[in-house]
Amino acid sequence: MRYIRTERADSVVDSTPADNKTIIVITPTKQRPERLADLTMLAQTLKQVGNLYWVVVEDADKTADLVSDLLARTGINHTYLATTNHGLPCRGWAQRNLALDYLRQNKDKFNEKDVIYFADDDNGYDLRLFDQYIRKVDVMGVWAVGIPGNALVEAPKVENGKVVGWHSAYLPDREFATDMAGFALNFGLVVSTNASWSLKCAGNFPEQCFLKQLNLSRSDLEPFGWESDKKPILVWHRQTAPAPDQPFDLMGYMAEYRLPQDEICKKFQQIHLMTYEQAEAIAKEYGPVESESKNEVKS
Amino acid sequence: MRYIRTERADSVVDSTPADNKTIIVITPTKQRPERLADLTMLAQTLKQVGNLYWVVVEDADKTADLVSDLLARTGINHTYLATTNHGLPCRGWAQRNLALDYLRQNKDKFNEKDVIYFADDDNGYDLRLFDQYIRKVDVMGVWAVGIPGNALVEAPKVENGKVVGWHSAYLPDREFATDMAGFALNFGLVVSTNASWSLKCAGNFPEQCFLKQLNLSRSDLEPFGWESDKKPILVWHRQTAPAPDQPFDLMGYMAEYRLPQDEICKKFQQIHLMTYEQAEAIAKEYGPVESESKNEVKS
Repeated sequence: MRYIRTERADSVVDSTPADNKTIIVITPTKQRPERLADLTMLAQTLKQVGNLYWVVVEDADKTADLVSDLLARTGINHTYLATTNHGLPCRGWAQRNLALDYLRQNKDKFNEKDVIYFADDDNGYDLRLFDQYIRKVDVMGVWAVGIPGNALVEAPKVENGKVVGWHSAYLPDREFATDMAGFALNFGLVVSTNASWSLKCAGNFPEQCFLKQLNLSRSDLEPFGWESDKKPILVWHRQTAPAPDQPFDLMGYMAEYRLPQDEICKKFQQIHLMTYEQAEAIAKEYGPVESESKNEVKS
Repeated sequence: MRYIRTERADSVVDSTPADNKTIIVITPTKQRPERLADLTMLAQTLKQVGNLYWVVVEDADKTADLVSDLLARTGINHTYLATTNHGLPCRGWAQRNLALDYLRQNKDKFNEKDVIYFADDDNGYDLRLFDQYIRKVDVMGVWAVGIPGNALVEAPKVENGKVVGWHSAYLPDREFATDMAGFALNFGLVVSTNASWSLKCAGNFPEQCFLKQLNLSRSDLEPFGWESDKKPILVWHRQTAPAPDQPFDLMGYMAEYRLPQDEICKKFQQIHLMTYEQAEAIAKEYGPVESESKNEVKS
């Protein structure tokens, strides 16, 4: 089941000049005690970025009023959707897929020179990321990400202005060894394909699996922020520590409990080490099979 | 050793009208991989608050260039100081004390109706907190805090508009069972006392120990945000999960390693359960005794 709600979509500028592209930010989000803190801080950053459209996708079968209200208060042009995981790994895969489906079905509302960026709700973003990097992307921009899991920084390896590899603590020989926060993509390129995250991404990293479907090669990549001796980091893959979640009276305060984790989420945590057949077997055992999720997006 | 650096202090408005008080935000901060992410997001929120003065205090013997540069970029009026812990618990006690010393020594630059708020760098802050709550404080304002350690929300207990106690998961019978993020104080009141955190706060909670030195009673408290059925939460006591801190080449990127934790920090973690004598013995064994820290603040 997919549920969709669109707000303020009518205010999208559909004749953006090339030098003032719209930045389309895609953010999966999930109910948890820390979520409103994270989303509030992110919204208060994004509202300072000009010409930005925010697609927020709830990990649930319906949207949450607390989030709708938060988004409305920011004044940011946005669409707020919801979908469950559909037998996919619980890392925002189904949510990002739905956002992309929405953009493909509404591509006339955007300009093909616009730029898509995947921004999780608990990361940290420097405002300069948006205008100095993302908005300048023509095909695919890449840059350093702070604290991406294994190291203090991961970054594209650049020689003579060209990306020749990756500085990464884990498997640096991947073709696209970038964190989800470390790249942005041309809108026209993305919506001209059906690229998505599916069980066929088993045995692979989500970033690499998605990017390979866009038929990109390293020579297409535009590196940012590598030139100077003191290289800035403009985005950090931060995580918010889980709050203790003891039963406690909310006393009328607008807070969110933690949702119990689906069994399939635990099983899929190592999908980058699985074969497609192993992933398919888990999906069949624990959730709806992926083909059931191919509903149309409805406005 | 205390080191102080003042920036843009000359631009403080010293004739603030009572209805447009300056909000003085005090933030202790410490080098760690996640710090720049947290401080960037906080700075990008605070720059949207009108008439705000930010006192940031580094937990170190000198200030950090990365933080100076960040503060300068925001355009926020601020002072950036540094101090080590001086044999006190490593929870920002010495840093907040130094900020208060600075304000007392520079009280002519502020208006006595201004308001002081202690804001840690990894919390989440809704912009409404500043203008709807903090700036309206006359003596001491109190409000709900999300995810404050043991529960999803802690809040003042209000009857007929008066604070009569606290909704708190842990020791709700304390006189001031509020989180550091849950109150703001009149500037004139604070600078007319020598209230601070010292080893005499052993056996007590830092908030309660400090507030008792201001000779406040519950009838002085002004509660905010308790009136409606759907009570908003405008600040969350969020924590950023520590990044793995393996040795890794920074490749010229501006990132920060985690500083090793002092032995005294571990020993003082349970100071709220110690006697003064126990705390004094630890301070003598592991660090400079507190009396050595009574240096003057120098501009």
